[in-house]
Amino acid sequence: MAFRTRIKVCFGDIDNAGIVYYPRFMHYFHLAIEEFFAGGLGIDYADVLHKRNLALPTVHLESDFRRRLKFGDRIDMEVRVINIGSTSITWGYRGYLVDDEEDIVVEGHNVTVCVKNDTFEKIDVPEWLIQGLKTYMETLDKE
Amino acid sequence: MAFRTRIKVCFGDIDNAGIVYYPRFMHYFHLAIEEFFAGGLGIDYADVLHKRNLALPTVHLESDFRRRLKFGDRIDMEVRVINIGSTSITWGYRGYLVDDEEDIVVEGHNVTVCVKNDTFEKIDVPEWLIQGLKTYMETLDKE
Amino acid sequence: MAFRTRIKVCFGDIDNAGIVYYPRFMHYFHLAIEEFFAGGLGIDYADVLHKRNLALPTVHLESDFRRRLKFGDRIDMEVRVINIGSTSITWGYRGYLVDDEEDIVVEGHNVTVCVKNDTFEKIDVPEWLIQGLKTYMETLDKE
Amino acid sequence: MAFRTRIKVCFGDIDNAGIVYYPRFMHYFHLAIEEFFAGGLGIDYADVLHKRNLALPTVHLESDFRRRLKFGDRIDMEVRVINIGSTSITWGYRGYLVDDEEDIVVEGHNVTVCVKNDTFEKIDVPEWLIQGLKTYMETLDKE
Repeated sequence: MAFRTRIKVCFGDIDNAGIVYYPRFMHYFHLAIEEFFAGGLGIDYADVLHKRNLALPTVHLESDFRRRLKFGDRIDMEVRVINIGSTSITWGYRGYLVDDEEDIVVEGHNVTVCVKNDTFEKIDVPEWLIQGLKTYMETLDKE
Repeated sequence: MAFRTRIKVCFGDIDNAGIVYYPRFMHYFHLAIEEFFAGGLGIDYADVLHKRNLALPTVHLESDFRRRLKFGDRIDMEVRVINIGSTSITWGYRGYLVDDEEDIVVEGHNVTVCVKNDTFEKIDVPEWLIQGLKTYMETLDKE
Repeated sequence: MAFRTRIKVCFGDIDNAGIVYYPRFMHYFHLAIEEFFAGGLGIDYADVLHKRNLALPTVHLESDFRRRLKFGDRIDMEVRVINIGSTSITWGYRGYLVDDEEDIVVEGHNVTVCVKNDTFEKIDVPEWLIQGLKTYMETLDKE
Repeated sequence: MAFRTRIKVCFGDIDNAGIVYYPRFMHYFHLAIEEFFAGGLGIDYADVLHKRNLALPTVHLESDFRRRLKFGDRIDMEVRVINIGSTSITWGYRGYLVDDEEDIVVEGHNVTVCVKNDTFEKIDVPEWLIQGLKTYMETLDKE
């Protein structure tokens, strides 16, 4: 099964229509990536930035919002690696309502490019990251 | 010229890579919609929600991020009406760096559906909104 | 021991000085209250709002920030009940850096008043909440 | 009259009780400081951080919330300099509802310390900042 992390909708995520403010879903995507690095790759995302000098700014995003969320809802956000390019990685996300596997709340993907965190110079996807992602994906295939 | 609103990148919009946290761009899109209702249609967005009982949750989003933004940058965010469906509206956004018309920072569009704000029952795009959007678009065509 | 909840500093909490944007600490206080209701009182905070029709707007706040926090830091936020007035409750917060009990990151308290969530009419602290808070405090005393 | 900046309550500032999420008021305080540097002192706050290498983390905060705010409300946030210490500055804030000078929405003050933005080493309030603040305060006195 692909990596998943649990996210609770908090009081402050709610907007004036009484549901999750939709930019917060992108924040949930990012939280999931942070957890994926720690839990799926075994590399702290803060270390990616500050020790390995790699940042992953988003250059493209698509998302479908299938269900409105309310305060107190919990979702399991799944992270997948859709593509590893020469300088970019495409990440997929799928959020399931907890306790209801059939109920997809949000789906999306984004493309991030690799840049040096200090200079923002574009670089190739580092070898350590390619290896980490491939090992992770092979583990998934074996399951 | 299409409706534009100026947005300043504030200190708190910046993330740990030193640039605008990408979910904030979706917040900028929303700020632009709020200003568009007031400035382009002459209807306060709070009144749309609370007096006209209409909410516009987003069901689909696509966005391209062409340029990183830093604290203090200012963008002019343009709002366009791309399509008016039976129950949905497609909005387009284009953010230009202030003082550099050639420099597109972000582009995107989202699809919102019309629901009653109190019950979230799906409804047709209200006639007052269709008329407002059409009048706005005709004004643009004449320029 | 008083109720505690663990909070992880996320990428998006960081500001342009590279540390947690200080308004996020108030968000952490609120997250802790949300968890306190669920974990300390056994009442979901969403139900407090939407089933029991009670909201707890803050009217006064004081806080001391003793240590800067960075992305990836984790704190245990403690919630205490300092005072139960006729219409108000005073809550205390103390955030400890995880794995370092001596290291207090942030301390503060706020005063919330009880209002009906639908009308914002000021009301007395409800009996069910007084009882819940007292039972919680007695449990602490016995430890 | 002390420096003031106008802040509009946006859709995303609202919480699940239908009013401004109280940590957003601290964000408003910070927005006001950012505008104060640009408009009151003539120094861009981004330049303070990145050219003058000065950051101003908050070490103490007190605030009173006198009135709930809703989406669409506008406030004029006033910034005052309460005290200039050797390494700290105390800032005062007072938010007025626009078009109703009698209606104070929020009041507060915070103490910031001066540190180097790159190393977070504590430093004395820089001379250029003392001079700027004093000139600003003298201008106020003459009015």
